[in-house]
This record gives sequence, structure tokens and C-alpha cells, in this order.
Amino acid sequence: MESKTLDGLMQPKSVAVVGASSQPGKIGYTVVDNLIKSGYEGKIYPINPKAADILGIKAYPSVLAVPDEIDAAAITVPASLVEQAAEECGKKGVKALIIITSGFSEVGNRDLEDRIVAIARRYNMRILGPNIVGTLSNSQKLNASFAPFLPLTGKATLISQSGALLIAMDASTYIRRVGFEKLISIGNMSDVDFADIITWLDDDPNTTCVSLYIEGFRDGRKFMDACRRAHKPIIALKSGVSSHGAAAAASHTGSLAGAAKVYGAAFQQAGVVQASDLDNLFDRTLALSLQPPMKGDNLLIITNGGGVGVLATDSAERYGLPLQFAPQDLRDELKKHMPEFGSAKNPVDLTGMAGRDWYEDSIRFAFAHPWVDGLVVLYCETSLTDPVDIAYGIKKAIDESGVKDKPVTVSFVGGEQSEKATRWLVEQGIPTYSAPDLAVNALAALREYAIMQQMLAETNEPCLDVNKAQALEVIGRARADGRDSLTEIEAKQVFAAYGLPVTKTQLAKNEEEAVELAKAIGFPIVMKIVSPDILHKSDAGGVKVNIKDEAGVREAYRTILNNAKAYKADARIHGIAIQEMAPWGTEVILGSVNDATFGPTMMFGLGGIFVEVLKDVTFRVAPVAEGQALRMLSEIRGAPILAGVRGEKPRDRQAMAATICRYSSMIVDLAEEISESDANPVLVYEEGKGVRVADARIILKKK
Amino acid sequence: MESKTLDGLMQPKSVAVVGASSQPGKIGYTVVDNLIKSGYEGKIYPINPKAADILGIKAYPSVLAVPDEIDAAAITVPASLVEQAAEECGKKGVKALIIITSGFSEVGNRDLEDRIVAIARRYNMRILGPNIVGTLSNSQKLNASFAPFLPLTGKATLISQSGALLIAMDASTYIRRVGFEKLISIGNMSDVDFADIITWLDDDPNTTCVSLYIEGFRDGRKFMDACRRAHKPIIALKSGVSSHGAAAAASHTGSLAGAAKVYGAAFQQAGVVQASDLDNLFDRTLALSLQPPMKGDNLLIITNGGGVGVLATDSAERYGLPLQFAPQDLRDELKKHMPEFGSAKNPVDLTGMAGRDWYEDSIRFAFAHPWVDGLVVLYCETSLTDPVDIAYGIKKAIDESGVKDKPVTVSFVGGEQSEKATRWLVEQGIPTYSAPDLAVNALAALREYAIMQQMLAETNEPCLDVNKAQALEVIGRARADGRDSLTEIEAKQVFAAYGLPVTKTQLAKNEEEAVELAKAIGFPIVMKIVSPDILHKSDAGGVKVNIKDEAGVREAYRTILNNAKAYKADARIHGIAIQEMAPWGTEVILGSVNDATFGPTMMFGLGGIFVEVLKDVTFRVAPVAEGQALRMLSEIRGAPILAGVRGEKPRDRQAMAATICRYSSMIVDLAEEISESDANPVLVYEEGKGVRVADARIILKKK
Repeated sequence: MESKTLDGLMQPKSVAVVGASSQPGKIGYTVVDNLIKSGYEGKIYPINPKAADILGIKAYPSVLAVPDEIDAAAITVPASLVEQAAEECGKKGVKALIIITSGFSEVGNRDLEDRIVAIARRYNMRILGPNIVGTLSNSQKLNASFAPFLPLTGKATLISQSGALLIAMDASTYIRRVGFEKLISIGNMSDVDFADIITWLDDDPNTTCVSLYIEGFRDGRKFMDACRRAHKPIIALKSGVSSHGAAAAASHTGSLAGAAKVYGAAFQQAGVVQASDLDNLFDRTLALSLQPPMKGDNLLIITNGGGVGVLATDSAERYGLPLQFAPQDLRDELKKHMPEFGSAKNPVDLTGMAGRDWYEDSIRFAFAHPWVDGLVVLYCETSLTDPVDIAYGIKKAIDESGVKDKPVTVSFVGGEQSEKATRWLVEQGIPTYSAPDLAVNALAALREYAIMQQMLAETNEPCLDVNKAQALEVIGRARADGRDSLTEIEAKQVFAAYGLPVTKTQLAKNEEEAVELAKAIGFPIVMKIVSPDILHKSDAGGVKVNIKDEAGVREAYRTILNNAKAYKADARIHGIAIQEMAPWGTEVILGSVNDATFGPTMMFGLGGIFVEVLKDVTFRVAPVAEGQALRMLSEIRGAPILAGVRGEKPRDRQAMAATICRYSSMIVDLAEEISESDANPVLVYEEGKGVRVADARIILKKK
Repeated sequence: MESKTLDGLMQPKSVAVVGASSQPGKIGYTVVDNLIKSGYEGKIYPINPKAADILGIKAYPSVLAVPDEIDAAAITVPASLVEQAAEECGKKGVKALIIITSGFSEVGNRDLEDRIVAIARRYNMRILGPNIVGTLSNSQKLNASFAPFLPLTGKATLISQSGALLIAMDASTYIRRVGFEKLISIGNMSDVDFADIITWLDDDPNTTCVSLYIEGFRDGRKFMDACRRAHKPIIALKSGVSSHGAAAAASHTGSLAGAAKVYGAAFQQAGVVQASDLDNLFDRTLALSLQPPMKGDNLLIITNGGGVGVLATDSAERYGLPLQFAPQDLRDELKKHMPEFGSAKNPVDLTGMAGRDWYEDSIRFAFAHPWVDGLVVLYCETSLTDPVDIAYGIKKAIDESGVKDKPVTVSFVGGEQSEKATRWLVEQGIPTYSAPDLAVNALAALREYAIMQQMLAETNEPCLDVNKAQALEVIGRARADGRDSLTEIEAKQVFAAYGLPVTKTQLAKNEEEAVELAKAIGFPIVMKIVSPDILHKSDAGGVKVNIKDEAGVREAYRTILNNAKAYKADARIHGIAIQEMAPWGTEVILGSVNDATFGPTMMFGLGGIFVEVLKDVTFRVAPVAEGQALRMLSEIRGAPILAGVRGEKPRDRQAMAATICRYSSMIVDLAEEISESDANPVLVYEEGKGVRVADARIILKKK
């Protein structure tokens, strides 16, 4: 559905409260009261079959009795009455339902929820919820919720899957001084989901950053698409990343949590910045809502305290922005604004003697210097300086630098005056924190955002030379045979249909065929039993390698067959695979799963102990473009192996990346057929010499 | 020196201010003013050659003119006058100098600093500083510093190597509501160092926790000893852990920063809890100063919000306290205090309907339950509950539980009322934070402390069967030969003197000797060139393995000699090593360095790609007891390799641990001789079959 249809929900001109009540303590009372107290300027229609007015506003027995149009209806009646309320709203032409009531899919009552969604679809209504706190907007002066007040005004919009957390965060905006334009409780997402709201917010002039608290959702692709299209930073705190936590999240929301690693990959691919915990969500939201992205890696730190300078330097490395020494001309200028024993290298230490002037002069020059991509200003409260005056100096210098396209964050460590200075700076649009680590982390969020935006601009060349029909034919034959897994030969045929460089493998149905095929492929060869009933071929004595001549083929053929029969007398045997023996190369593994949230998802890792002991693997939601494939190769711990160690030449990373791209296209193209797959091992040769897929496995979706 | 001699510094009955001034803005003015304003009840003696009184207190021209005893003298005169001031203080019998003045070793002026230390030694005076802010104590009402006021009262004492940070932290105690008993600026540590103060504080009834901001120090062993002997938790924030940060720290303090990894190992071995940044130092200090250690792993989380419950569960896993489900009897009881849709599993979700009673009843029962080792209580502000009332309930329940030996931490997410509740709980001795992650992290600090205390209780069996004389003889011969490295044969002789299981290796000086030794050792054997001039033996063609008979020995002998001469014509050749060929085993590496701060330090890692690609190694300051050695084996990422992978039997971890212990004893015993060493590879066999050191290297200290 088009995002426009959310206008009735996001900026309603009139709101009905179905289940409005005169009795304090009832949610139907609180919502009407909140609408009034927040200063909502649209029409409010309390709906109550028995009351003439509620809190001084004329009430109606039903939405159908309301003489004017109703944009949104907040539903607070018990779950059993929601169906009827929705029907009446539909008839009335209400544009959106804000179903606050709980007792639906979150407690297993999915049928009722589905029926209400069906009603909404019929009348072209949108539903927020059910099982929500409601929705709050500062620009609309709209508190259509049972949260007690509008949040501190700001430029971010929070969408929260936890109602309790939304209420608590609402209150804490005043303590933390992180402001929000809107707070939206999203609940069971029976209709409107994260993606819908993100899309709508992209055109909202009052929102500069979208902040998400996510427990789990189903339609990962829709979410990713919405995030990719968005022109504003999006930041997500995903809860349930521990195995125990995931279990707790599932019991809480009834939604599918998905694997934390896959969520992480999807966020990166969709350009979504991540928060590590609740504090971090607030801190990074502040920076993302107030400052532009950081377009390069050069971070400059200016401080009046060596100690905090070193702490910030440690943090910079921790958050992926390791400090470089400043260029000489920058140092030369900065040296003018500090005593002899100061340092202009980076961190720039103005020393404890630094007053407002030194800060101002250093910042004005440094922020405008082309080498600097982002600035962190640190201040330790001293007896000699007034924190508020230093804050004025920082703001003035940044304004006078004329720079608009670089970010700055600030840390003030100190007491009440520092706190006052901090609040003032935040009000001026400069994110300011109570510790150097937080300021650096916030700047890192702006860098992460810029890096991901750059990634999103990469083009994704589709593979055109694929033969889907051939792949489906192979799969169809296996299905006709009653199987839900392919033999190695079949899996390689499917791989080959997508241009994957599999080792030559053909099926010999008798000894003579084996000899012929071996000669055609060329010695040495490998021979393996092909039987849908023997999965562990080596255990069954079903594999012989390095066979060098015809006699060897004949002997191996008989031995393998005898072993297989001894292993499992009634095994169905298709024959024996005659395979090219690929030369030794670096072993890697490709694999795919069908993630419950994100669908076909690629895994890449090095073979052997890297995968078995270190679980050193990385994921991407498919398809994977070449740039991302190369990043996969770089981000595993064993990455140096591919760059060449112990005097070996670098491996063919380009060919490996191309293989990942092709593989990922295959699992997307065959998403309806393939449940899991892997290529293990894939042998990677030195640069220019390509890769070979030596073994293949495909498990089909059950149909 | 005995800690008692610090009494004059730490609780002076009288303080002189040398360089006292009537001129506001001068440090000599500020210090006198601060002493007065802080309400110091001892005697104050301003020292100024020209003034009759300072700030209304009678002044003296010199400490020698003061009629009474002086415990401590705060020195604020310029660096050039400090020597004379120290001399006069010495003559006067002053017990301690608080040298605030800067301009000493931190700017390269070490001679002056050394002369002042010599004066102090002569008069049995102690020195704090120079280059410090001073020292502050709430219990003494003593502000002998130029920091503007005493910190918020509390039970922790902070020792800071950064003066600027100390001043800023002082002010921020009022904002963060983390109280301190003392703040001590330690500066250049010309005399009094961290260890001295930690030892003194161990007997201080006003201090329950010692908090350290460390940039770097020299005498790591003294620090570790003091920490090990302490009966109170110690927490350290070490700055300069990044490579760039370490450089910045060195330029800032002029001290040796030491390798971050070795500091980390030393902290663990000395029972010192670590903080990750400034916020974390405050947060963990609060918990360590108010709560007992957590003696087991069972963490119970009680919450009124599913969302924060899941976030806390994620945090628990992140900080090494993964949640377990609560036992049935605990669940059964807790189920009574929540609605149907609540959860008693852990996290215990009382739901948003939870009021004070449910919190009280759940906490009272759960905290006293024997399964629970530590408790985290989470509260999300709701419209229905009063945060302050919930706080009262939490405190009451904890008191009524009767539990004194388990820790509890709390998180309140909300607005002003939650902040009020938070402050009140902290005043009641219950560490309370603004986010679930912080409460879990703080509890984790109490768990880390308990685990390290348990480690410290482990006995360390010394190796008695060592032959130091033999080792020294081998080393002496190499030194006599003008060398500062040992040959492999010599290194193995030293190793063998410490009972390390080296492969049998003997030096053959001619072909006949080679044959005889090979027969005595038993085939197959390895032969290697022995030359102090050929370090890379393989590159020189100087190694032959798997030699199976006499003919092989003869051929190898000639080939190796020819290769060596071709490689380096003038190489001094001792002969050829005839070595037992150890059977294949899992390859590991032992190594040692002489850390500038901590001295002989052990390294352990798996061989091959683990060390070359993954840098998967771990450190301990030597000597290493068996328990710690086993921990080294467990904490590397490749640990599963030693447990047995791919169907292999577990490796002989016990023998490996014993080898680490012996090796560590050797590097301590020979600390004056050995600069670096390694055993690479060490082959580890399956359980019960021991280990063999196949190659050895020792670099001597230059003398």
C-alpha cells in the first residue's frame, strides 16, 4: 500500500476515542484526557454509548453518529468488542485505527486479529497495533495514547515494539535531554509495520532521524527496502540477541526473532545504524538527529585534558575510527593557541590552561580544515574556566567556521555548570555528552551511517547467463523421485546452471561408463558413491581419491559398490560419481539458509578449524553485490589467509566474490525450492586462477 | 616502606601551605582557601616570607618558624624553589610533602625531581606528586588541593594519574550521584605510588572500594602485590590501550605505558576489576563500594517490562553472566505475584501491572532463595505506579529478606520521579542506574571481583627440582663466547634444567659422533645445523627430518654442512644437532618477554594460523600457578582444539599447564639473564601422554 494512506494515522485532523470513559484510571479516560492536555488542535470525538459528554467534550454513542469526518479512531474497548468497533469505523469511513486494546496475537488470539485486519482491508483502513500504547507527536500536539505526556521536543521519531519501554523512554527524554518529534507504539503490527512508518517519515519535515526499538518481525525484505529507500538516518536497537534473550523476546511478543547475526547483516545491508543498548540508542539518536554524516575517516580531537584525550583516543580505536596525526599545516596553526607543553598532534591538547579563546580559535580553524572529516571537542571542568562560556565559544567557532557538512560532537566532564553547558549545546544542535567515550561513539554512528550510504550507492550487476529452467528440471526430477534432497551430482548441476565453477562430475552407472568418463575428464580422478540413502559417503567407504589409471577406476568401482552394500544393504544406488580431482587450494565454505525473517541468506567462511572451531563465518541477506561480497571476505577473522600468509601468494578474492554473487542470485532465484545449501569445500586458488566448487549439497523445501 | 608512614599524608593533624598567597587566582591562595572552606579541623599554617597573615590565618616566613608540629606540607612554590622548601620541611620534621607544583619529570626535568626525592629519603618524609592537584578527604573535611570543593560523600576512594580528570570528576560526582571518601591526585609518583596508597587504604574504615585512573607506571610487581593483599575491591580504568592512545599517554605523563594486554593480565592476576571507560568507572565503582561480591553465577532479573527484561538478558550474556531459567519452586512462588500473562522463568516479568506489592513480595522471596546469587531489579516508569513508592518497596523487601551477602543492582528507566527514586535508592546503598544494561554491567563487576578473589586463594606450588646452577653455566658459556643469544641446544639445556620436556638433542661435532648419537637417541631423527650465525636454519638448508638409518645420517651430515657453508661462508659452526623426532601432536607456542612494567611475562597460544593469522595468544605475568595456566588454555579462541575436535581425543591439558608453570618459574628465576624466549613448537599429545618441546630459543639480556 502507498505510504500516503498513513496520513490519517500520522497527522489526523480528527480523532475519535472508541471506549471513551469519564472514569479516571480507565484507558478510555486517559486517552481523551491526554488528547486535551497535549493541546491537540483537531477534533476530538469521544465514543461511548451511555455518556452525553466526556471530560467536557460532546460524546457520541457510535462513530456512525458523528456528523463529521473521522481520520483516526483510537480503540480502547475490550478485545471482544474490537471487531464490531472496527466494522463501524469502516462504515464511517475512518482512515486509521489506533488499536490500543491488547489480547490478540500476543496471547495467541490470532484469529480475532486476522478478522479485524480483514475488516480494515475491506474498508481501506490502516491499523496501528493492536496491543499498543498509542501514538504521540509534538508537531501535531497529539497524544493519542495512555503515555502521560508528550516527549521533550526534538527531531527524531521513535518507533517502539515495547509499549512499556516507550512510556518509560517518554518520561526519560526530559532527564536525558534527547528530544523526539514522535513516539509510535507499534505493537503486534497486524497491518502497519516498521517499513510503512519509515516510508511515511521519510517525507515528514519534522523528523530528521528514525529510531527503532525492535524485538522481531516477519517481513525482513520489506523492512530492508524501506530503509534502503529512506533519505534519513535510521538507528535500531535489536533486543533478544542472546540465545536466552531471543527466547524471552519470542515469549514476549509472539513474533519470530530471527537469528541475531542475520539481523545484524540486514541492518548493515539496509544502511541501518545499530545501537548496543538503551543508553546508546538515546546517545546515537541525538547525534544522528542533529548532525550530518561523517564522510571520511579523519577524526580530530580537541581537548583541555590529556587524560580525557587519551580515553577518547582509545574509544576512537574501539569504534573503528583510529586516530591519525594531524597534517603539519594544521598542527602549525593549532600550536599558536596553546602553551609550549600542549600538543597539536591529535589529540590536540590545549592543556588545562585553555580558556574560551583557545577553544574558539582552534575549533574555527580546525573544523574548516579540509583534512578534518569530523570533530570531537572535549572539555574537563577546571577551576579557571566557566563551562557555559566555553560552550558559547564552541558554538560560535563552529558557526564561524562556515562548515555545514561535517559533524561535531562534544563531551563535558564536570558538575552543574557543565551540565548547564551541555543542555545549552544540545539545544543549539550540538550533541554533547558526559564522557569522552560517548562523544566518540556518537561520532562513530555518523561515520557508520556515511559508510553504509556509500555501500547502498554501489550497483548490483545481475547475473544474466543463468539457466533457471535447467535447475528446476533437476530439482523436479528429484521431487518426482520423492526426495527432498539432491545428490551431489544433482546439486552440482543446479550450481552449474547458475554459472558456479563446479568440478567436473558425471554419473557412471556401470564399470565401463566409469572408465570412459574417467578418461574423458582426465586423471587423476575422485570416485564417490551416489545414493540418496547414503549421506555420509566417507563413513560408508564410498569415496576414493587420486585414482590415476583405468585399473584404478575398475578396482575402485567394485570396492565402493561392495562397501556401500555392506554399509546399507537396501540403499538405492544411482551409480558412482566420476569427478575431476581439483588441485589443492585454500578451503572456504559457502552456504545458505532460508531465514524466517529475511529469506534466502548467504553464509561465507574459511574451512577447517575456522568454521569448526572458531565459527568464523559471516552472513548477508541475498542477493549479494560484489562490493558486499568483497566485504564478506575481509570481515572474517581469518581474512589474512585470503590475502596470503606464510609466503603464499594472495588468493583470487575477485573470483571468490563473483562466486558469492552468483551463489546468492541462485538462492534468491530458487527461493521457492531451496531450503538450505552449501558448497563445501570451495577451493580458492592464487590470484587470476579462480575457484572451484568441489562438493555441493542442496536440501529442498518440503512441498 | 611501611604503610604507616603515610598517616601524615592521609590524615594529617596539621597542614602547612608553602607558597601560601593572599592573591586570589594563585594556587597558594586557592589551597589555603580550600582548606578553610572544606572545614578542616586540624591546624593550617600558611607559609609566606612576606605576609603576616593569609585569609585571616597567621602566616610564617618558613616552616622552620612554625612553633608546632607539621604533618603535611602542601608545596605550591615554583619548581625552582621546591628543593629548598623540601630541605626546610625535612629539617622541621614534616612527615609528608604534597608537591602540587609542576615542571619536573613530566617535562623531562628528572634530575630536580630525583634530588627532591633524595632530600625526602634523608628526612624520612613521604612525597605525593609532584605535578598534582592535591588530595581531598570527606571524612577529614580536608581539601588540600586546588580542586574547588570536596566530592559528594561516599565510600570509594579515587586515585587519579590525571589531575584535570580528577577535578572534572570531583564536580561530576554531584551530577552522577556517585560519592567518594577521598580523591587523590598522584602525579609523577616520585615516591608515593598506587601501591602505597592502596595498602594504606586497606585499613581505612572510611573506604570500601578503591578506584584507579591509570595512565602507566613502572613498578608493576609492587602494584600487583599491594592489590593482591588488599581486602577491598579495586577497580581500574587504564587509558592508552590503543596503539595511538599509548603514544598519547606517554607524551602526557612521561611514564612507560606498557603493553595493554599485559596490564590486562596483571589486573586479572592481582584481582583488579577493570572499567572500560569513564562512565563505566563511575558505574562500577558505585556497585563495588556499596554491595558485596557475587559468589555464584545465578543471576535473577525481576522486571515490570518485557522489553527491558530482554535487553538485560542480552547484557547478561555480553558481560559473562548468561541467564539460566529459575528453579521450579522459585517460579511457583513468583507466579503468585503476577498476572496470568507474566513470566516467572527468568527474566521474571511481573508485567506493566506490577505495583509496589508485587515487587516487594517477589524480591523478598527471590533474594533469600538459595539458588539466587545476585539480583537485578528493573523498573520501567508507568502511568499507574509511583517510582518513589516502588523504590521504597524494593528497599523494604531487600531489608526484610535478611540477605547480607548477595548483591543487588537496580535500573529505573523514566523521568523525574524515577530520577528521584534512583537517588534515594543510591543513598540507601542500592546501586541504581538509568538503563538495564548499566545495572547488569555493575552486577557483573561484583561477579568478576568474586571470581578473581577465588583465583587469588589458589595455592601456587613452587617447582623444587630445578637446577639453576646448570642453567647459569650454559648461559655463562654463551656470554663468555661473546654471544647474547643461545643456540637451540643451549636453550634446550636451560629448559631441561627447569624440568621442561625438551626433545632429546645432542651436539655432534663430526660425522662419526652424529652416527653414534643418532643410534643412542633412536631412529627416526632430525638433524639441524648449530651455528650462532645462522638463525633461520631452514632457509639455509640446515634442517633434515625423518632420517631413518646410519646412511641417512652420514648423507644429511655432509649435505647440511655444505648448505650452511654455501649459505654463509664464514659462519661459525658448532656442529650438527642430532634430535629425537617427536611424534606429531597439536602445536602450541610458549614465549616470554620482559615487560617494562611487569617484568617476566608468559605468552601462550596455539601454533600455525592461530598465532600467525589470528594473534590468538594470551598473557600472564610470571610466575603462573596451575589454575591460571589452565585458564590460559581455556581463554584462547582456539581452546576447543585442546579439548579435541574432529573426533580427536582431548589433549593433555594438565601436562601443558604444568609446562607453563615450569616455564614461568624459569623466566622469573633467570629474570636477570633472559630477555626473551620461546618454545615453538611445543607438541601436545592426547591426555596422559604429555607434551614435548621440539624447538627452543633464548635471547639474553645485554650486560
